[in-house]
Amino acid sequence: MKVGVLGARGKVGAEMCAAVEAADDMELVASIDAGDDVNVLVSSGAQVVIDFTHPDVVMANLEFCISHGIHAVVGTTGFDAGRLAQLEGWLEESPATGVLIAPNFSIGAILMMKFATIAAPFYDSVEIIELHHPTKADAPSGTAARTAALIAEARKAAGSPAFPDATSQEIEGARGADIDGVRVHALRIRGMIAHQEVVCGGPGETLTIRHDSMDRASFGPGVLTGCRQIAAHPGLTVGLEHFLDL
Amino acid sequence: MKVGVLGARGKVGAEMCAAVEAADDMELVASIDAGDDVNVLVSSGAQVVIDFTHPDVVMANLEFCISHGIHAVVGTTGFDAGRLAQLEGWLEESPATGVLIAPNFSIGAILMMKFATIAAPFYDSVEIIELHHPTKADAPSGTAARTAALIAEARKAAGSPAFPDATSQEIEGARGADIDGVRVHALRIRGMIAHQEVVCGGPGETLTIRHDSMDRASFGPGVLTGCRQIAAHPGLTVGLEHFLDL
Amino acid sequence: MKVGVLGARGKVGAEMCAAVEAADDMELVASIDAGDDVNVLVSSGAQVVIDFTHPDVVMANLEFCISHGIHAVVGTTGFDAGRLAQLEGWLEESPATGVLIAPNFSIGAILMMKFATIAAPFYDSVEIIELHHPTKADAPSGTAARTAALIAEARKAAGSPAFPDATSQEIEGARGADIDGVRVHALRIRGMIAHQEVVCGGPGETLTIRHDSMDRASFGPGVLTGCRQIAAHPGLTVGLEHFLDL
Amino acid sequence: MKVGVLGARGKVGAEMCAAVEAADDMELVASIDAGDDVNVLVSSGAQVVIDFTHPDVVMANLEFCISHGIHAVVGTTGFDAGRLAQLEGWLEESPATGVLIAPNFSIGAILMMKFATIAAPFYDSVEIIELHHPTKADAPSGTAARTAALIAEARKAAGSPAFPDATSQEIEGARGADIDGVRVHALRIRGMIAHQEVVCGGPGETLTIRHDSMDRASFGPGVLTGCRQIAAHPGLTVGLEHFLDL
Repeated sequence: MKVGVLGARGKVGAEMCAAVEAADDMELVASIDAGDDVNVLVSSGAQVVIDFTHPDVVMANLEFCISHGIHAVVGTTGFDAGRLAQLEGWLEESPATGVLIAPNFSIGAILMMKFATIAAPFYDSVEIIELHHPTKADAPSGTAARTAALIAEARKAAGSPAFPDATSQEIEGARGADIDGVRVHALRIRGMIAHQEVVCGGPGETLTIRHDSMDRASFGPGVLTGCRQIAAHPGLTVGLEHFLDL
Repeated sequence: MKVGVLGARGKVGAEMCAAVEAADDMELVASIDAGDDVNVLVSSGAQVVIDFTHPDVVMANLEFCISHGIHAVVGTTGFDAGRLAQLEGWLEESPATGVLIAPNFSIGAILMMKFATIAAPFYDSVEIIELHHPTKADAPSGTAARTAALIAEARKAAGSPAFPDATSQEIEGARGADIDGVRVHALRIRGMIAHQEVVCGGPGETLTIRHDSMDRASFGPGVLTGCRQIAAHPGLTVGLEHFLDL
Repeated sequence: MKVGVLGARGKVGAEMCAAVEAADDMELVASIDAGDDVNVLVSSGAQVVIDFTHPDVVMANLEFCISHGIHAVVGTTGFDAGRLAQLEGWLEESPATGVLIAPNFSIGAILMMKFATIAAPFYDSVEIIELHHPTKADAPSGTAARTAALIAEARKAAGSPAFPDATSQEIEGARGADIDGVRVHALRIRGMIAHQEVVCGGPGETLTIRHDSMDRASFGPGVLTGCRQIAAHPGLTVGLEHFLDL
Repeated sequence: MKVGVLGARGKVGAEMCAAVEAADDMELVASIDAGDDVNVLVSSGAQVVIDFTHPDVVMANLEFCISHGIHAVVGTTGFDAGRLAQLEGWLEESPATGVLIAPNFSIGAILMMKFATIAAPFYDSVEIIELHHPTKADAPSGTAARTAALIAEARKAAGSPAFPDATSQEIEGARGADIDGVRVHALRIRGMIAHQEVVCGGPGETLTIRHDSMDRASFGPGVLTGCRQIAAHPGLTVGLEHFLDL
């Protein structure tokens, strides 16, 4: 499979170039960044493009790829409903082409969310702890907020009751943030990168699912899975989980 | 639902009586132990029996229940192929009756094994740590050995490669027991009850699934789920996982 | 050593009776609870008394013990400055007698606080997670609040800077409670008993100290240590840590 | 303080140069590697040298530094009794000069070993789990073996009994390696760097001390502490723990 990388000199893009080069079934045919000629994708015969660029340029990149029948696996952020509709319009004109947009290419993060969703209705209590480096601006993390929403949804669908909590004396903030009724606790610790625990408990037992992400290299297996599956999934897909057989 | 408990004065049986009494949709109509008259099950109108007794008496209990059309949810151990065949023979004569035999009624243990099986093919490395009280005779635990076998099976089915391991100098035993190629490490620690971690790792990230079982009360939700589902599953079922919608 | 237990039929007291009986170097000579004659302590020759009773009766118990030269190891709560002054007054009249008042007899809790205090000044970041059963009224726990205060004190003494934290967008409560500048996160999870983690981090590494308390039996070793050391520590001592050689 | 770095273009050396440059109280005056002129240390006025080089060259480096009255903080390995005696001989001729040799500059690793040593005699059970990347050649790690030896020594000094262990049926290796009677379990997991847990347990409670080392940057704070303290410790010191006020 011939693969091109857009944003090839960025931190994540450089990791993706290395991951493609290390894969036996892939060939890195184009490494493109700001200022480079995007037509190299066509002349090099790229079948799939990996895009870790910037919200300002990603739409132009995708219009070019789709119009040339090149599949795209996209980790760039900033897709709203309007942008997704625009992509679907372009894809109608090129029905064999696939575009995968994923907010998170870490397979561990996807499995953690999947397992939390399965487990949540079986337990009386479910809470989330996330731990990140202290230069992070938002608390809790987007992944923790998304996990909380999925847990709340799964419990609502199963008719699960509210979580038991007899707290009557609380120092403000001790019980964490409330996201759709799920408590989320955010630690900011030097030396940490991105870590999350989902803690579930019932009578006499607890189940804990922990994901530790130490390095951007963790996106590699997910992005390569996206490249390998994209030809079989023409049209627009949002979320790598749709390509994993869970 | 009218429920009887066999082995009602044993440690687990007593917990099960308490769990039935605490359930809104169940009534405890018979609490039977060695020396008691088993016909009380019939006279009390029990629809389901929970059996936590002994391998020596469980077959007689089940023959009685099946012949009277009483469903059975069984946590007693010692079922081999011969015994299971015998049960299937009896159940042919009473086709509306269900018997559930489960080696483990902890929902957390079942979810841990399920999640380990799903995750295993996505990672380069998977190992198991189990921690139990120091009066345990076998190492590793049956649950850990079973989890290792399931992981090995899932990886074989997915065509996963062998685990990477460059160990060339080992103090004997450091790398644990090898069960179907999966390394299992057993700790014996005073104060612990029954705990297990499945540790998975790939480039730049790890996923850990941990189950902590502190109390026999942890069997309660699984046994009650068995009681509620058994009427819809006539015949013999081995393993509570078949009653959970995973 | 001849030991008496006051509050012998309470949950903790019963555990203490069992712990004394299991110790090779001790003899349980009196098991007393409400309504029993306290003079049995004298007639049985008790040298040390263990008191897990109630704030309403503990002062009368201690006045009796001190006046008869019987040492006391006390887990009952409710000691304020006035009560401690009263005890010191009584002990002046009986200078060979020792009284140990301790808010926590768990050696693990004491070691956790000690280690957190030692480690805190070496790290950029320190936060606390505590996990308890969902019937607990206060959040965070008294032990977590005390640990936070000790960490803050140790860092102040060492001239440590404030913790780094770039959080600019927070869902209310996500960053936990602020106790003397230390963030504390409280989870309430069915199946848990009493658990605490102190998480420390610096460039490229983290250190985590975790204490899991599963059972009142955990007070046993600390109370027995108190009994064995009390004769060597006449007068009033507050806190078991003063009897441990840390 | 004027600091020189030997091995400045190696992976650890480069991190140390960055750490010195980031410190307000230090100036990086010489960055030397193979082929560079070591006399720059003198001409630049270096007061302390950090050496992360190679066993083949470290003795020549230290002879030069000691003879010029430059203190040395050394992370290079390969020091045996003969080499240490040689260093002491050289230092006698230059009594105001200090040399610190440390097998581990991670403060977290030192604290973990210190805390394990303090805690070990208070518990019935103590075992070690270490987790490393799968390209590591030795199992268990040197740090785990050293921790086990320290635990065994502390328990011997305290007269602690053997660990309880009723294992009668073991799959070979399940209970780990036996180092001075302490069980050590080694996991090899892709995505992990260097991690260790010391698990202690007594009646009803456990205490776990975990150290996670993610990055060579973790040596920085320890090496800088060594540089700041070395002038106050003339002569030879082995082990950074002697410079920390624990």
